[in-house]
Amino acid sequence: MERAMYFLDQKDMPTHWYNIIPDLPEPLPPLVHPATKEPLPKEGPLPPPLFTDSVNKQEFSQERYIEIPDEVLEAYRTYRPTVLHRAFRLEKALDTPAKIFYKYEGTSQAGSHKPNTAIAQAYYAKKEGVKRLTTETGAGQWGSALAFGCAFFGLECKVYMVRVSYNQKPYRRILMETWGAQAVPSPSPDTEVGRRFLAENPEHTGSLGIAISEACEDAYANDDTKYTIGSVVNHVLLHQTIIGEETRKQMEMADAYPDIIVGCIGGGSNFAGQFLPWIRDKLSGKKPDMRIICVEPYAAPTLTKGPYAWDYGDIAGLAPIVRMYTLGHDFIPPPVHAGGLRYHGMAPIICHLYKLGFVEAQAVHQVATFEAGVTFARTEGIITAPEPCHDLRVAIDEALKCKESGESKTILIAHSGHGHFDLAAYDEYLSGRLQDYEYPEEKVKEALKNLPEVPAF
Amino acid sequence: MERAMYFLDQKDMPTHWYNIIPDLPEPLPPLVHPATKEPLPKEGPLPPPLFTDSVNKQEFSQERYIEIPDEVLEAYRTYRPTVLHRAFRLEKALDTPAKIFYKYEGTSQAGSHKPNTAIAQAYYAKKEGVKRLTTETGAGQWGSALAFGCAFFGLECKVYMVRVSYNQKPYRRILMETWGAQAVPSPSPDTEVGRRFLAENPEHTGSLGIAISEACEDAYANDDTKYTIGSVVNHVLLHQTIIGEETRKQMEMADAYPDIIVGCIGGGSNFAGQFLPWIRDKLSGKKPDMRIICVEPYAAPTLTKGPYAWDYGDIAGLAPIVRMYTLGHDFIPPPVHAGGLRYHGMAPIICHLYKLGFVEAQAVHQVATFEAGVTFARTEGIITAPEPCHDLRVAIDEALKCKESGESKTILIAHSGHGHFDLAAYDEYLSGRLQDYEYPEEKVKEALKNLPEVPAF
Repeated sequence: MERAMYFLDQKDMPTHWYNIIPDLPEPLPPLVHPATKEPLPKEGPLPPPLFTDSVNKQEFSQERYIEIPDEVLEAYRTYRPTVLHRAFRLEKALDTPAKIFYKYEGTSQAGSHKPNTAIAQAYYAKKEGVKRLTTETGAGQWGSALAFGCAFFGLECKVYMVRVSYNQKPYRRILMETWGAQAVPSPSPDTEVGRRFLAENPEHTGSLGIAISEACEDAYANDDTKYTIGSVVNHVLLHQTIIGEETRKQMEMADAYPDIIVGCIGGGSNFAGQFLPWIRDKLSGKKPDMRIICVEPYAAPTLTKGPYAWDYGDIAGLAPIVRMYTLGHDFIPPPVHAGGLRYHGMAPIICHLYKLGFVEAQAVHQVATFEAGVTFARTEGIITAPEPCHDLRVAIDEALKCKESGESKTILIAHSGHGHFDLAAYDEYLSGRLQDYEYPEEKVKEALKNLPEVPAF
Repeated sequence: MERAMYFLDQKDMPTHWYNIIPDLPEPLPPLVHPATKEPLPKEGPLPPPLFTDSVNKQEFSQERYIEIPDEVLEAYRTYRPTVLHRAFRLEKALDTPAKIFYKYEGTSQAGSHKPNTAIAQAYYAKKEGVKRLTTETGAGQWGSALAFGCAFFGLECKVYMVRVSYNQKPYRRILMETWGAQAVPSPSPDTEVGRRFLAENPEHTGSLGIAISEACEDAYANDDTKYTIGSVVNHVLLHQTIIGEETRKQMEMADAYPDIIVGCIGGGSNFAGQFLPWIRDKLSGKKPDMRIICVEPYAAPTLTKGPYAWDYGDIAGLAPIVRMYTLGHDFIPPPVHAGGLRYHGMAPIICHLYKLGFVEAQAVHQVATFEAGVTFARTEGIITAPEPCHDLRVAIDEALKCKESGESKTILIAHSGHGHFDLAAYDEYLSGRLQDYEYPEEKVKEALKNLPEVPAF
């Protein structure tokens, strides 16, 4: 019997993250200062001046391989290497000659890929003498991962959680508290910006923009505190490359090489973490026909519908202006369950590679993603989070195309995590109450009117 | 850096379950018929006559090693071998010279050890031409695992779920439905016994006894249907020995051997699955001083407080009468969060070994178990279900004793699963609302008055 799970021995774990920046065929566009609209120096630092020195250095590094510190590796070793699975049962159910593999990050203690960077950021903060980290969180995926990372390095952690999620989704709040973090509903009385919104409306339900402002103000106001983010920026993608570096070794164990790599993109960090270590072979001409498919929801189709433009990285206009595909920084997408895919923009590295034609993109509908999720649950067993259900949809479609054509392609899925806290969405799907959302074209048009004007330079 | 996770290659997976029955120093007492009170034939079958032939044969087998069918191994290979972890971070936090290992079943798709037997039972049913399986479930752990097993073998599955849990804990119901099972609140209008209770009270909240009766009636009434149970009986313990058989190989990889094995016991199947493959060495005299500690809640302290007596295996009096430690079949324990540890009796094999002095038992308080769970979460990261929080409490206590004595003992924890659906209990603990329950001595005395009278034979 063939292996269906490929374990990588901890002695063979990758010791370096892969930094794609020196390998890009053209350099990334510069960042632009959100207030002055001037290009920022290409050696950094990343504004606002709230990040640790270490990640600031990594953000702009030209080093191809960056060593993973021993302390980070030691923390990774509580859950890594994660398993590469061969989806024999799914293949059989689809009656496809395709070989389907999935690298599954759902066995991390926080249930997703997010700890890969939370641990690294917490470690660097500890090393630099920082005592506290702050961040914002919507549904709580990132906040809970940071809480976990801080628990491992004995740091205090304060998470400003959008009030409506804080009240409606208590589970991730309890996770954060179990790991020892303080989670407060935002707007909170703990910051000036929070107090201002609460004075206007004591029942304010909050927004990610307000929560970011609170987390930044907190870090500004406290010398012992730094601010962190969980996706989009270069250093976060860098930390996630541990996923792809492991997968390369595991695919070698399986004597396989992917023809197609598929993953969902919100900010882009999980999928980039998987595909960046592979795209090297495409950039170098070693595997020019490898297809890398970014999957996004019709509700927020950044790459497939948005223009490549200058826009703020965040809704509040505090983050740098970046060149990216965007739906407009104040675009609010329809309430799809895949909350992690509702970001208006996309990691600049992914946008750049898409612009240059090295990755492709595809938008899918919500109901079809849960249909794929249920097929996966009944064959492979795993209950998939709504975000990676997007991967499953496209992977299944590609496997069915192989059935038509008779081709035995190798498909690799970047499966980012479990859906144990998303069962209400499965219930909606199973009871026929789940709905699709069309591309909100008019809302995007409106939002795109508010792009910042950046002078030519 | 040493390994903190021990992966066992699928090529080296155990191919046999271990059956302790031929190795017992004295034979197990016979089962007694619930109605006639006569001893049942020692070659079976297990009443009621609702089980598959295969598990009936296994229940009474004298074969020491029973081959795991290829189809079962293939299904196991979607999540097994599970990982053996070395808890370096916990050891460091406790500042103990003890070496702490934990075998973690929480990465199974259902989140616990239960699929190890659900898959086997579903496979045998399929092989014997059975089309449907029924069972009862309280909070839903077993029901969801059976749903998962049935999904893998294309069987229909109907789970009678105690109505109060069905209404209050929708998540496991949704899991069952995602895996394709039908879950109905019990009492249901689908059986005579259900209709009778509903006629008395249309809002009846149900009980495990009623749900068992419904699941049995359904299997009686339908030729294509068999009934299943998820703990206590010999064949379930047998299927769980895959856990200990894997652990033996993994401990060998770690060049370690346990001085102490600790696990919680409800019906006993998870812990027996871990310790039976080790107790061989104690029974044979190879490792006479190995300690095997069964942990139970003060709220339902079967081994530590109950008499060794004849009692019904189930609350309804349909199951065989067995010789076991019991708190009385109609004893209803206080509502501790560890629902899986509230069973009134205990697996006969464990009772027998306890009676003979080969295993020990310890009762612990609820608040102290969650305190251990939070320590574990902040060091090892994993959010532990309330049941295995009991193991953690005793493992930590033993590790602290090692700190006192300076002994470097090796402690092995049988960690049965994650607590992703138990976060409300963590919230209670963290907010100081969680309470302890004393041993309900008077209620046990009352219940013990209702033990069946079994004539001497």
